[in-house]
Formats: sequence, structure tokens, C-alpha cells
Amino acid sequence: MAQSKPLVAILMGSKSDWETVRHASETLHKFDVPHESRVLSAHRTPNATVEYVAAAEGRGIEVVIAAAGGAAHLAGVCAANTILPVLGVPMESASLKGLDSLLSTVQMPGGIPVGTLAIGKPGAVNAALLAVAILARKRPELADRLRAFRTEQEGKVLKEKLEGN
Amino acid sequence: MAQSKPLVAILMGSKSDWETVRHASETLHKFDVPHESRVLSAHRTPNATVEYVAAAEGRGIEVVIAAAGGAAHLAGVCAANTILPVLGVPMESASLKGLDSLLSTVQMPGGIPVGTLAIGKPGAVNAALLAVAILARKRPELADRLRAFRTEQEGKVLKEKLEGN
Amino acid sequence: MAQSKPLVAILMGSKSDWETVRHASETLHKFDVPHESRVLSAHRTPNATVEYVAAAEGRGIEVVIAAAGGAAHLAGVCAANTILPVLGVPMESASLKGLDSLLSTVQMPGGIPVGTLAIGKPGAVNAALLAVAILARKRPELADRLRAFRTEQEGKVLKEKLEGN
Amino acid sequence: MAQSKPLVAILMGSKSDWETVRHASETLHKFDVPHESRVLSAHRTPNATVEYVAAAEGRGIEVVIAAAGGAAHLAGVCAANTILPVLGVPMESASLKGLDSLLSTVQMPGGIPVGTLAIGKPGAVNAALLAVAILARKRPELADRLRAFRTEQEGKVLKEKLEGN
Amino acid sequence: MAQSKPLVAILMGSKSDWETVRHASETLHKFDVPHESRVLSAHRTPNATVEYVAAAEGRGIEVVIAAAGGAAHLAGVCAANTILPVLGVPMESASLKGLDSLLSTVQMPGGIPVGTLAIGKPGAVNAALLAVAILARKRPELADRLRAFRTEQEGKVLKEKLEGN
Amino acid sequence: MAQSKPLVAILMGSKSDWETVRHASETLHKFDVPHESRVLSAHRTPNATVEYVAAAEGRGIEVVIAAAGGAAHLAGVCAANTILPVLGVPMESASLKGLDSLLSTVQMPGGIPVGTLAIGKPGAVNAALLAVAILARKRPELADRLRAFRTEQEGKVLKEKLEGN
Amino acid sequence: MAQSKPLVAILMGSKSDWETVRHASETLHKFDVPHESRVLSAHRTPNATVEYVAAAEGRGIEVVIAAAGGAAHLAGVCAANTILPVLGVPMESASLKGLDSLLSTVQMPGGIPVGTLAIGKPGAVNAALLAVAILARKRPELADRLRAFRTEQEGKVLKEKLEGN
Amino acid sequence: MAQSKPLVAILMGSKSDWETVRHASETLHKFDVPHESRVLSAHRTPNATVEYVAAAEGRGIEVVIAAAGGAAHLAGVCAANTILPVLGVPMESASLKGLDSLLSTVQMPGGIPVGTLAIGKPGAVNAALLAVAILARKRPELADRLRAFRTEQEGKVLKEKLEGN
Repeated sequence: MAQSKPLVAILMGSKSDWETVRHASETLHKFDVPHESRVLSAHRTPNATVEYVAAAEGRGIEVVIAAAGGAAHLAGVCAANTILPVLGVPMESASLKGLDSLLSTVQMPGGIPVGTLAIGKPGAVNAALLAVAILARKRPELADRLRAFRTEQEGKVLKEKLEGN
Repeated sequence: MAQSKPLVAILMGSKSDWETVRHASETLHKFDVPHESRVLSAHRTPNATVEYVAAAEGRGIEVVIAAAGGAAHLAGVCAANTILPVLGVPMESASLKGLDSLLSTVQMPGGIPVGTLAIGKPGAVNAALLAVAILARKRPELADRLRAFRTEQEGKVLKEKLEGN
Repeated sequence: MAQSKPLVAILMGSKSDWETVRHASETLHKFDVPHESRVLSAHRTPNATVEYVAAAEGRGIEVVIAAAGGAAHLAGVCAANTILPVLGVPMESASLKGLDSLLSTVQMPGGIPVGTLAIGKPGAVNAALLAVAILARKRPELADRLRAFRTEQEGKVLKEKLEGN
Repeated sequence: MAQSKPLVAILMGSKSDWETVRHASETLHKFDVPHESRVLSAHRTPNATVEYVAAAEGRGIEVVIAAAGGAAHLAGVCAANTILPVLGVPMESASLKGLDSLLSTVQMPGGIPVGTLAIGKPGAVNAALLAVAILARKRPELADRLRAFRTEQEGKVLKEKLEGN
Repeated sequence: MAQSKPLVAILMGSKSDWETVRHASETLHKFDVPHESRVLSAHRTPNATVEYVAAAEGRGIEVVIAAAGGAAHLAGVCAANTILPVLGVPMESASLKGLDSLLSTVQMPGGIPVGTLAIGKPGAVNAALLAVAILARKRPELADRLRAFRTEQEGKVLKEKLEGN
Repeated sequence: MAQSKPLVAILMGSKSDWETVRHASETLHKFDVPHESRVLSAHRTPNATVEYVAAAEGRGIEVVIAAAGGAAHLAGVCAANTILPVLGVPMESASLKGLDSLLSTVQMPGGIPVGTLAIGKPGAVNAALLAVAILARKRPELADRLRAFRTEQEGKVLKEKLEGN
Repeated sequence: MAQSKPLVAILMGSKSDWETVRHASETLHKFDVPHESRVLSAHRTPNATVEYVAAAEGRGIEVVIAAAGGAAHLAGVCAANTILPVLGVPMESASLKGLDSLLSTVQMPGGIPVGTLAIGKPGAVNAALLAVAILARKRPELADRLRAFRTEQEGKVLKEKLEGN
Repeated sequence: MAQSKPLVAILMGSKSDWETVRHASETLHKFDVPHESRVLSAHRTPNATVEYVAAAEGRGIEVVIAAAGGAAHLAGVCAANTILPVLGVPMESASLKGLDSLLSTVQMPGGIPVGTLAIGKPGAVNAALLAVAILARKRPELADRLRAFRTEQEGKVLKEKLEGN
């Protein structure tokens, strides 16, 4: 993985999403997967978003992660403008707590898929892990790291102590 | 209203929406408002949709009505690409009965507004009536017709007979 | 826009809504759109509300924005008593977080339209922006300002920096 | 109960509600409670609705039952215009199955109460029974009939046979 | 209203509901309506609850207000054991914010009515006001007080000032 | 299992629930578990219900299954009146499709437990299976039958053929 | 109950659930029911979870309590791997407040039952009480304790004082 | 793509899901992607499911599609037992119309990702398309076919005619 060209693009609809989305970036860092993170809005920067996504495949990007809240169209706009796998992360929204973000992201019509993860931080972490799993299809060293990650994670859970138990 | 250039654009994400959306068209016909209806998908025809909407104002369109279901992004995509008033009609969806369509249409972020109507047929009718109300701001004859429509509608309700009452 | 007669009426069901609704007023201020804000309740001041709305068109008001929470009937009462475009802003409610407000505002029957915006602050901002878009149909300088607003907004997003990225 | 002046007013927002609302009327008939049923819409006939409700107490009406669907404002409009007890029956709506009607009817702000019953037919029956319970506070013969109704109802349930049991 | 025998019984499923339910008591105090408040649980004190409710009518109680949260059965248990009007107040619950309480209270089967008010404090206030409206059917002085209350409430809203407007 | 005294009581709030609840009875038959089925309503036959449940343990009943819809209080009433394990089956309701039944059954306050199964037929089957699992704690032959049932069920799934695959 | 071998297994998907789940353990302590608590995840430690559950019956465990949040599969995995009664406690989740946990736990397919309790702390307490009720079927002293617990609980509620009443 | 070893495994929890899930299989057929479809239940055949999934990577499977309804644990169980990308398709369920299936599938905890598609048929089609997009990362001919599919799909939408327009 000596290359430095980004393999994963992490897009978010608003800078305020970064607090959650950074967990996707940090997870990719753990796997040494080169990636880049951008604020691009389906609604407020439609042209820049389409241009970025349409150019992604040509630039060597292999997976797009898109995080947005409310009427969360970012992942759908990405999916409509690339044939790369697009993973959607619904942000927890102010009033409806992410139910709107989830339905806006996952209920895509047949023909344009978005692989959707959980609302909020677990979804951000898992989008990165699913991106690694996709990249691992042709990078055996990433598959090895995923196996090691699973083993380590399993070990941590099994060592948990319950206070006062 | 002798002009034939369309003042209202009615867009829908899928041909199957037409059964519902035609009520918008029929309502505009009653008010002699020239309009055009198109199938354009935010997801399956993203470029054609953006081009159509970006050109709408220049072609004399004054209001855009966008109807879609599920992860209903069409109205949002329209609103992102024009400064014209955009009215969204959430379609009743197969599984979630339009709750997904409603939230995807109405929960737009600050900056890009979509005026959202009810799910399904009442929403299609009302999108047309709201478009007429908007057009009527500079067309007094449309305001007169709206007043007449309201009076007629009121009269119909007041004449209702309840069988077996 | 030298005139000082209000073009937009902002109504809210309770003084406590002002904290949210002021964003509609502030947005209209940015566009130099004359407007007035009033506390008028569909339930607690029904007569005053109907009188105000019925007189609005005659006073030169062109768009009504109505914000309310819970069983949010204010926008519907306005729409029933004027042919002006009525825009509804569902307030975030104490227990159900605005889902009740949203459904009470948006699910209007065919015949009486309310253009509904998002729950809470984004909805307040967008109601003002949609009002400007409606007014802009016969005021080219407002259309120009909307375009400038969009460009400025786009620029702001594109300049966002992600800390720690 | 020789009097023929109606004691209960049953209002519904649309003639199509009658299929459900007639169960309220039939229940009142069983108790020989004089009543009248009207189609009056909060949105399409706002003036007639307000006039009717404002005059109800003076005409001898003691309880108002209001049934409506979707953005169901009828009961709220009634409650805002009379001090009589107002009972709301949420109609099952086309897409959201009455969840919208229920929240629009029950989530009234402090100050203007609506006693809300279940969605659809059980709610229509129970609105009538609750009206009888209210009227029975000064009409002992109605209290007796309610007791008899309860006993009869209990007896019916206890006699149920389960086929194939 | 010189009498001191309670006319309204206010029941709540848990002492922790009192913080909300006291608004019902305070509202009845404003109208000088004698009443009593009790903690009685449908689930934890079933016998005492049934005994209390079954004896209520004989003791001169004319309206029962029942407040409970979660699987909120208290109002239903009351309604099943008396022919008095029963008003239900759904408490805001810890996780589901009162949606569970609302549905458990309002969705009663045909035959046993519960007049349900809004979730939480507005519902507590309104249960008291609806109780007053019911009692007022044979107590003209209460009807007068209700009219005065409405006028006063209307005046308060109309005098609201919006800071910074 | 030669005994004929019922070990499980199956209660349902309405005869119309039997179409679904019979699956509980049929499942118990398969395991040769003696049981009885009764229509008893928390609301319409409160006394008979309490009497039946209070006497159940003395009659040798070891598990109570209670099925009801809407404001589904039956399981809660049972649990309040016996220390036997009570299993609740939420019926699919007309408008809200069992969401009301589920929340009314499962959201019991701490102190009075109801073990709740899925909405409708799967819940009826599983209530019976869980009752068998409880009875099996002191009846090894029932544990054996449960193991055999699981093996048979597993075998059936593994033999499924997909047409056109 | 001199035995020290655990009769109840309390499993939770994450150490962070312990704050809630400890109420199940504390309740079992009150009844002197030997039990053990473990962090075991359906997703992160699938093998250890299956092994633990498959061995539970042989080790003398009679009831399994499984608590998890979000896509809460732990109770279902337990139920699939043992014929013991499995009781599920949905944890309150970050965004959807336990609605996801509840549906993931309770909506099991016919054939594999999970007796589900309320979301959060009341559910943890009640899972323990239902476990006691199950164990009590062959341990009369536990039935006696349950009766005493109910009496004590009833007494506490009946002694509640309302401040300011 | 001359190889015949399956690259994609399509699993479903019940044979009755096949009517919907076959659309995933048919979509993969269109792209000549070798795959196999199996009925395997997280709950009724837990061992066979785990064995199948654990062996999948070794057999050359590169993507797992898992479809299930209700408490839909199948995708989660797959994801817990393989590092391959797992795509979940929530089935429309009988009562809750797939909301339960969706939340059970998508709300996975951080650490074990499931890329979730829409409820029902659109989700089945899109799971296949996303699988193709993943496989295409190292198979340029699949990327070409995806581009051709998108172009063809776009053309179809643009040719739609609206009857009676």
C-alpha cells in the first residue's frame, strides 16, 4: 500500500458532519488505506459534487462514502453519477434523529444502488470497514488486516469485566 | 392567458407516478395554465434532469412541480439547480406508504427550499393550486379564478347529503 | 424595494416559536423584503387569526408564512382563509420532536394547499427563501439577489476546512 | 328524552367519512339521543364551520363530535370556537393509515382541549358513547342505559364460542 | 361551588407522573372545582384501582382523569370499571417519548371510550379544561368561567411582543 | 402428559382474534400440551377476566398467553393479577397494523412483566413454543419434543427448493 | 436455594449495556437466584456466543436473558441455539431510542421464540422477574417470594404522597 | 467470465422471500455473474448458515447478499462470520411493512458492517447491482457492462410517454 493516491473518497454534506464522519477517516487510517475527505453538498454545491464524483473513477478512487442528514441526497447523487460502489451514512438529524436521513439514503429506486450503513458513528466506522472489505477483493494484505481486526475486536469483547458483577 | 409557452413544469421520477401526478396536470388545465409534464429521474437521468431544470427559467417556466417516491430526491435536485419556486409531491411508496418520500422531500437543509405538499393525489392537486397561487401574484385573472374555485368548492361541500342520515 | 408595506406575513402559534421563527425574519431582512411577524394562534385566537389572514391580501401581503407545533393547524387555517401562497413551518414539538407538527401541516386535503418546509430552523430559513423566490417572479432584482445568495452559499461550502483531516 | 332538538352535533370533514362516522350516529340512535350530522370542512368551508360551531351551544347542542383525516383540523377548529366538550375522531387516511389524523387531532396545545378517540370505526362508536356519558351527568335515564349497555356487551363477549376450539 | 366533595378524580400510575399531572390539579383549582389526586397503578395496584374507580360514581365523582406512561393501561382500566367520562393523559415516556403512552391510551376498542388528550403537560391542562367543560353542562357558573378563561387566554396571546422584531 | 387439566390458558380480547390465535392452540396440540382458549376482554369483561386469571394458578394453569389488539391491555391485566408467566401476543390492528398493539403489550412498567412475542401469527406460534419451553423446565419429555421440533424445522428449511433458480 | 450453580444467564452485547442490565442482576439477587452475567456479542463474538448458549442447558442454566441495542440480534441468536426460554431486553439506542432494538428483538419468525420485555431499565427488571416466575414453576419458595414481592410493591404505591396536593 | 464457480451468494431466510429475491438473481444473470441462491435461516438453521458463510470466501465467493424480514438477522449473522462484503435486503414484512426488517438489517454496531439496500424488490435489484460494482473493481468488463446498463436505463426513462398528457 505504498501508493498515496486516494482509494476512498469520503464526502459529507456539511462541515458539522465531520465530528461523526471522522470515524470513517480514522478507521481507514488504521488500515493504511489512502483516502480524502471533502465537504460537498448535494443541494448547495450540486455542480461541484457531480464533477467530483464523475471524475472519481478516473482519479483512481474505488469506493465513495457519502454522509448526509435530513433529506440526505448526497449518497444518491453520488450513485447517480458513478458506477463505483457508493456507501451511504445517514447522519443523526436534529429533530427526527436520523430516521429521515436513513430513509432518504436507503430507499433508492431499483437501478441506482447505495449500500447504507447505520445512523451516526457506528455507520461511519462501518462504511470504512465495508470499503476495506471491497478493496480487499484484490488486495490480499487488506483481507489479512481485516481478519486481524476481527480477531482483535473479538478478543476485546471477551475480556470485558462488568463492575459490581 | 393566450400564451402557449409552459409556465409550470411537472416532473416525475417514474412513468408509474403519472397515475397520481396527472391530477396536477388536470388541475392546471382547469385554470388554463400552460404547462408541460416530463419523466425525469434524479437518479437514472441525472444529467438530463439538471439540464432541464437549469434551462427552465430561461424558457419561461415560473414554477417547478417535482413528484417522486422512496428516496425522493427529484424535488431537491430541482431546487438545487434553479432559483424558481420548487414544489414537491411525495408519492405513496410500496412499503412505507410515502413516509420515506415525504421525509426525503420535506427535510431539506437551510438554503435550498422545497415547498412540500401532501403524499399522493391530494398533494398533486394542491401542488397545482399552489402553483396557480404563485402565478396569480402577477396575473389578477388567476387570482379571480382561484377565488371562484374556492367559492365553488365551498358550495359543493355545503350541498353534501349523507345517505341514511 | 423602497416600499415599506409588508410583503410577507410571518405568523407563529406561540411566542416561544419566535426563537426558531426569527430565522425566517432574519433571512427576509437579508433580502430587504419588508415583512411583519405576529403571534396568532389557530386555537387560542381563532377570530383574530382569521381576520388577519382574510385582510392580508388587501393590505398588500403576497406570501404568508405560518409556523406552529403539535397539532399545528395555523398554516391550514391561513390557507383556508386566503388565496395567497401559504408556507408552513412545523415547529419541533416537546415529545414527538416535530413529527406531529409536520404531519398536521403537510397532510392537507386536496383543495387547500400549504407548501411545507422542514421541521425547525432549516424550515424557517427556507420558508423565507421560498417566499423570496415567489416574490421574485415579478421583481427581477430579487431574482438577482437569489442568484447571488446561491453563489455565495456555494462558495462558503467549497471553502470549508476539516480539522484534523 | 321526548325532545327532538339535537343534543349532539356530529361533524365530518368529507362526505367520504360518513361510512365510518355513521357508527357514531347509529350508536346515539340506540340511546335515543337526538343529534344531527353535517359535512363541514375546517379547510374548504371555514366560515360555515365556525358559524355552525359558534351557534351550537345556543341551539342546545351539548357535545360536538368532529371526525376528519390527514391534517385533521376539524376538531381543533370546533374546540377553538366553543366551550362545549369537543370529541375528535381521527379518520383512517389513505397513505399514513390515520397516524397523521391522530396526531393532528390529539396533540392540541394547552388551553383548547379535544377529547380524542381511536382511529376509525371504534373511535366513532366510542365518541358517541363518551357523548352519552357526558350527557348522562344530568340525565339519570342515560346513565341507566349506559349501565345496561355495558352489561349487555359483557354478556355478549362471555357467550362467544371459538370454532374448532 | 361551596361543596367540598370531589367532582373530579385525578389518577396517575406513578408518583413520578405528578410533576406533569399537577398541572391538571392546578387548572381545576383555578376553576374552584373540588377534586382529589391519587397514585393508583393499573398494574401494581390492580385491586385498589378497580375498587376506587367502581366506587367513584357513588361518591359523587363526575369525571375521571387518568394519566400513565408506557403501556399506559390506567385510563382503560378506569373506563372498563365505570360509566363516568374517563379522560386519558399519556405521559412522556423515557425511550419512546410518549408515542407508546398515546397509542396505549387512545386506541381503545369500540364499547369502552377514553377521551384522550395530548402527551404531557398540555394534555394534563386540557384534561382539566375538558373536565370543566363536562361539569359545566349542568353548572352555568362554570360555563361562564370557561368563557372568561378563553377571553383572558385570547388577550394574553394578542399582547405578546416579539423581542428583536 | 396423560393429564387433561389445562396447563396453558390462551386468552384473547375478541372472537375475531381467534383466526390468528388458533395457531397458538394448534402448536400446543402438536406438543400434546393440555390447554384452554377463552374470549375475555380487559375492557368489556373486566371482572370475568380478573376472576379467571386470579384463579388460574389454583386450577393448575402454569402459563398464560394473552392476545389483543389496539390499546392491548389484556396481557397487562393478566400479569397484574397472577404471578404465573404471562406471554403477550400483539394482534395486527386495523389502522396501525399492530404497532399500537405491540407497544401496549411490551412497554410494561418495571414490576409486572409480560414476555411479548411478534405481531400476529408468528407471535401466536411462538407464544405456544415459549410456553412449551417454560413447561419443559420440569417435564423432560417436553424438552425432548422441543429438540425434535427444532431438528425437524431445520430439516424442512434445508430441503427448500427455489423454483426457477 | 442453597445451590450456587447459576440458573439464569444474563448476556449483553456491549459492556455499555451493563449500566441498564445490572437492574436484571440486582433483581435476581433480591430473589436469591444464582445467575451469571457476560458480555457476548452476536456480531463481534459470534462463536463464543453460540458456544456459551449451546452449553447453557447442560450447565444447569434454565433461563437466558439477552440484552442488546440497535440491530439487536443477541436474543435471537440465543434462541436459535438453545431450547431454553430466552427473554430479550431491547436497549435504548443512540439515535432511534430503542425502537430499532425493540423491533429487532420482538419480531422473530414463527419457530424460534423470544419473550421480549420493555426497552431499557423496566425491561431489565422485568426480564429478571419473568425469569423468577419461570423458575418458580418448580420451586414453590420462589412463588412465595414473588407473591411477597407483589404485596410489598402494592403497598409502596398505595403509600405514595403527592407533594403540594 | 467463463468461470462457473459462483462469485456471489444470495441467501434468504425463507422460501417465501424468493418471489422478491429472484430479482437479485435475474439481475446478476443479466451481467453473466455466476452466483448461487440458498434458503438459510439465521434462526431456524443457525449452524448451516454459519458453516455456509464461513466457507464462502474459501469457495471463491466474493460478495454475500442476504435477504430477510421481521427481526431480520440473516445479513448480520453473515457479516459476523465472514470478512467478505455483505449486502442486506430487508424484506417487506406482514404487519410493519419492512420497517422492522430495515432497522434490524441496517442498524449494525460499529465493527461488523452490512451494506443495506431498500426494502423489497428495488433492494433486491440494487443488491445485485452493488455486487456487480464491487466485482467490477478487478474485472474491467463488468465496469463496461455497468456503464452500458446505466446508459440503457437512462435511455429508457427519457423515452417514456405519458398517456393523455
